[in-house]
Amino acid sequence: MKQEKAFVKEITPQSKDFSRWYIDAIKKADLMDYTSVRGCIVFKPDGYELWERIQAAMDQRFKDTGHRNAYFPMLIPESFFQKEKEHVEGFNPELPWVTEAGGEKLEERLALRPTSETTIGQMYSQWIQSYRDLPVLINQWANVFRWEKRTMPFLRTSEFLWQEGHTAHATEEEARQETMQMLEIYREVVEQELAIPVWKGKKTPRERFAGAVDTYSIEAMMKDGKAVQAGTSHYLGENFAKGFDIKFLDRDNQLKYVHTTSWGTSTRLIGSMIMVHGDDRGLVLPPRVAPTQVVMIPVGPAKLREKVMEQFDPLFDALKAAGIRVRADLREETPGWKFNEWEMRGVPIRLEIGPRDVDKNQAILARRDTGEKVAVVLDGAVQSVKDLLDEIQQNMFQKALAFREQHSHLGIETLEDLKEHIANKENEQGIPGWVLAGWCGEDSCELKVKEETKFTTRNIPFAPPATKSTCLACGGEAQDTVWFARSY
Amino acid sequence: MKQEKAFVKEITPQSKDFSRWYIDAIKKADLMDYTSVRGCIVFKPDGYELWERIQAAMDQRFKDTGHRNAYFPMLIPESFFQKEKEHVEGFNPELPWVTEAGGEKLEERLALRPTSETTIGQMYSQWIQSYRDLPVLINQWANVFRWEKRTMPFLRTSEFLWQEGHTAHATEEEARQETMQMLEIYREVVEQELAIPVWKGKKTPRERFAGAVDTYSIEAMMKDGKAVQAGTSHYLGENFAKGFDIKFLDRDNQLKYVHTTSWGTSTRLIGSMIMVHGDDRGLVLPPRVAPTQVVMIPVGPAKLREKVMEQFDPLFDALKAAGIRVRADLREETPGWKFNEWEMRGVPIRLEIGPRDVDKNQAILARRDTGEKVAVVLDGAVQSVKDLLDEIQQNMFQKALAFREQHSHLGIETLEDLKEHIANKENEQGIPGWVLAGWCGEDSCELKVKEETKFTTRNIPFAPPATKSTCLACGGEAQDTVWFARSY
Repeated sequence: MKQEKAFVKEITPQSKDFSRWYIDAIKKADLMDYTSVRGCIVFKPDGYELWERIQAAMDQRFKDTGHRNAYFPMLIPESFFQKEKEHVEGFNPELPWVTEAGGEKLEERLALRPTSETTIGQMYSQWIQSYRDLPVLINQWANVFRWEKRTMPFLRTSEFLWQEGHTAHATEEEARQETMQMLEIYREVVEQELAIPVWKGKKTPRERFAGAVDTYSIEAMMKDGKAVQAGTSHYLGENFAKGFDIKFLDRDNQLKYVHTTSWGTSTRLIGSMIMVHGDDRGLVLPPRVAPTQVVMIPVGPAKLREKVMEQFDPLFDALKAAGIRVRADLREETPGWKFNEWEMRGVPIRLEIGPRDVDKNQAILARRDTGEKVAVVLDGAVQSVKDLLDEIQQNMFQKALAFREQHSHLGIETLEDLKEHIANKENEQGIPGWVLAGWCGEDSCELKVKEETKFTTRNIPFAPPATKSTCLACGGEAQDTVWFARSY
Repeated sequence: MKQEKAFVKEITPQSKDFSRWYIDAIKKADLMDYTSVRGCIVFKPDGYELWERIQAAMDQRFKDTGHRNAYFPMLIPESFFQKEKEHVEGFNPELPWVTEAGGEKLEERLALRPTSETTIGQMYSQWIQSYRDLPVLINQWANVFRWEKRTMPFLRTSEFLWQEGHTAHATEEEARQETMQMLEIYREVVEQELAIPVWKGKKTPRERFAGAVDTYSIEAMMKDGKAVQAGTSHYLGENFAKGFDIKFLDRDNQLKYVHTTSWGTSTRLIGSMIMVHGDDRGLVLPPRVAPTQVVMIPVGPAKLREKVMEQFDPLFDALKAAGIRVRADLREETPGWKFNEWEMRGVPIRLEIGPRDVDKNQAILARRDTGEKVAVVLDGAVQSVKDLLDEIQQNMFQKALAFREQHSHLGIETLEDLKEHIANKENEQGIPGWVLAGWCGEDSCELKVKEETKFTTRNIPFAPPATKSTCLACGGEAQDTVWFARSY
């Protein structure tokens, strides 16, 4: 008992220290744990189940669009990295290396994959000979490694789980269509399943994937106003085809390089979901991916419990039979203690039944997203729960969208304005959020904004809410309208 | 065209060289490819899909019995291995080590996991405090590494995919029940889904998992008479609990060590399935896991194709709508060429329709397992296909069972008899198969049999087909009746 009570001690308020709040929330909700290996976490069952549901939603859509899964070796020979110049420069500093195996020193170091373009490029060069072999549409679910200095559970860990799609096409046009198709699938899963609104757009050259011609992303706003790059889709052009000599004999009898793409989403989506929806009481999970959608708790005096259970048990069975992920909390703790615990874990609906509810032929549904309580007729409770789960899913998306709009600033035209905006927000304990601004296209201007404000370019949205004509940094003519923000 | 024809060149006959046959069969069926990293393979889409179907069958049963998935770090600090003496001795020689990461030499070497008892033991010691925290029932799907000298695709690779269950219990009785429950789940999946008959039994101490009190296995016979250990379930006693200090306060207020189990199956099941069912024409896949269950091929002269397609297309749609994994081969190659290719790939049913079939309102179903052809009425073809898929699944199991019985020898009582048996079989180009024999319980006798015949103890079957009273090696009193065989 003592131990369990200790478990639900305070979560740091978001307004006090957002990072601390995040760590408290995920620890207390039992999603993860730290380990003895730097930057590596355990994905505990509730954390891993979120990933399983994201996986299922993604995987179905990948298969529906003709992709198949495969698995490539985790270890990559050092020489493979040398074949695409930008790629090696981008990833080399973050690689862990196997140098000994089976009691012997290896002749060539083997990297733990940070991403698999190189290994897969090597294989594709053997598999692809003719236009008949194209397109190749393969996805891999795997663990990857990036030994970064600063880590944060789910958002940035030394080892993480992800999917990486790798496709090869006969033409640039087809490869570019693929890149856009996968970006749209990412948007759909993240918005529909995780209730996180995102901006689709193109990354600036500085923020591009190492080795890509063009990188596209979906970007999401967290509750502290910072951005998370929630998924990326790359058009790699002929870069990897040339590095790995992936050529095919086309219908016109010409030998040509293939055009490749790659696209990925990872367990950082779990962290994003927490940071978009959570509140000071803990997690708020979208019904579509919540491990538990409804927790049922009997209330009222113990001596009337039997009467309650006569209604409680059949309702539990009916919810389960309807495919709802329901759980009954029959422990001896007080209802108040249980309410706290399940709120902290982010369960979308708490269903209470007490003796008076039985008399009134009703159950109480308490929403995690709004805190509202409604009484529903017992006989129709299954449908009421289903409807409410849908409503919560929609409401969470709308709420996140409203938050994003509230913290998106479209009227900042100069770097001085931006600095003033940030200073003002910090003075009033507010969040600077995102800024939509013009950009002339020069690296130097992007870099200047970053150095002076820590705001980086997130992406150049396909459908910006406004169009800007002058560069935020230099005041020159804007080439693009860009989202600027601090990011994870 | 040229290239595709080259693709279906001869597969080495099983009787000529079984290992060569195996490699030819899996390469030609496009299940895997070799890579530049020693002993690591690519699981190509058709190979990986077999794994996805095995995963789904296992995972559902794990969840139905109360287990949940989690994910633990792949890298294990060297010091963890020291905590369980037998474990370190068993695995140390096969470990690959990360010694550098992020541009720096590491203070402590990190092993790529060969199995996760150590990492998980370390976490369980933090998670488990009270009897209320028990049982802990966790499974992990992951890649693991064992840097072995001799490798063979799917059966023994430097990196492989597997699931590893790790549970902790308050009592030995409960932990032993868990060990048996999981072994039974393995038997069920392997027999029902993969159509491979297995013997459940206990391993001898020499063949035990490093660190286990008791190891149980399911053992299967391949078509060359060799054995594959297709799954193992270990009762670990208090060994890891003591090594990692996993204690709990019991109801009686006593601090006690937990009893742990672990159990695993891997991608070697793919290889087993090929070696149990395949024949000289290539793979024979059990319908329940085959990526393609039915391949439809139109036959007859091109000028009558339109008439055929009027029946062909609706039947394709109807099979698909019925949830059958059907594929239409409409390429320009000859029917004979296509027949060969799909036989090689092991598709359970080939469905042919030609102009004369249309006239007779029929389709032809050709079974991969027996080679038989039957004509079925077009209107009822969906049900006929479903029934035939079930029949093939059952027949494949019965066929494998009959093969196993034919090559299981129950009348060999002495080591001399065994040697003679092996010599006779080798003279007549036959296979020595398995031998059920008595064993006195001494390591030395087990070792003697191994050294003189390469036959090792597979397991001590729970329900042996006969009971032996004298030891195969020393002639002394038998303690157990054991399966002896050569193994992969």
